[in-house]
Amino acid sequence: MTDTSTQFNAPLPPSEQDVTELFAPKFDDKGLIMGIASDANSGEILMVAYMNAEALSQTLKTGKAHFYSRSRNAQWMKGESSGNTLDVVEMRTDCDQDIILMKVKLTGLGAACHTGRQSCFYRTIELADGLPVLKFDGSKPKFDPKKVY
Amino acid sequence: MTDTSTQFNAPLPPSEQDVTELFAPKFDDKGLIMGIASDANSGEILMVAYMNAEALSQTLKTGKAHFYSRSRNAQWMKGESSGNTLDVVEMRTDCDQDIILMKVKLTGLGAACHTGRQSCFYRTIELADGLPVLKFDGSKPKFDPKKVY
Repeated sequence: MTDTSTQFNAPLPPSEQDVTELFAPKFDDKGLIMGIASDANSGEILMVAYMNAEALSQTLKTGKAHFYSRSRNAQWMKGESSGNTLDVVEMRTDCDQDIILMKVKLTGLGAACHTGRQSCFYRTIELADGLPVLKFDGSKPKFDPKKVY
Repeated sequence: MTDTSTQFNAPLPPSEQDVTELFAPKFDDKGLIMGIASDANSGEILMVAYMNAEALSQTLKTGKAHFYSRSRNAQWMKGESSGNTLDVVEMRTDCDQDIILMKVKLTGLGAACHTGRQSCFYRTIELADGLPVLKFDGSKPKFDPKKVY
């Protein structure tokens, strides 16, 4: 992997990062920044994963969402195995430039989650007798993960 | 701060975390989990900040979004200074239970960002001659941060 972190501006002091037009993404001490993909039409949040400088650079360059896998220690293009790429319509960052938001168009079968569902956020957190439990929202997998990965 | 992390189930192995109804949030090595607040009506992402176990617990208990400030090393209720609380309508977690998504109703002046804007994501990332720059989307502050904080 080529180190491309130098291609981005270094983080700015707090007093500057929220008022500037300079893109100065704040990577954490592991060189990662959080990337959120939301559906450009519905606004639904599809998935959240880390990006390293190379993944961010490739996303900007190709218009397809790239992330960084901490378990595999590698940069990857979302959908490179499953064919369900996330085509970036718009990118944003937040006031302190430590989050990347991508508004995307789902391609292929339209599933962003490794479980085959459209979104990774398929369970609500509910209180049962005062204790939090998860409840599936009924969204169905669009493919069988065992056959794809 | 009371340690309330024991009130939540310990993280599950990868093969279980995405199929269970057990809420077993995966806090990182600093005891934090990422919380995303989106507008319950429009789906717009308003802000992203860390939560510790206490902030997550208080959010579930009170229905108002709580976060954890790494710089102040303290748990806080969003809006406790500005009056612009985030009232939680629905909570979700993702497949590997390391993100908390809150669909919220804005109160007060309807500003989630410390700059006074509704959302922290008020700048798009654009390419100018192949290099990323930020562009303000024109959203205006709803209050003067200097007078509120």
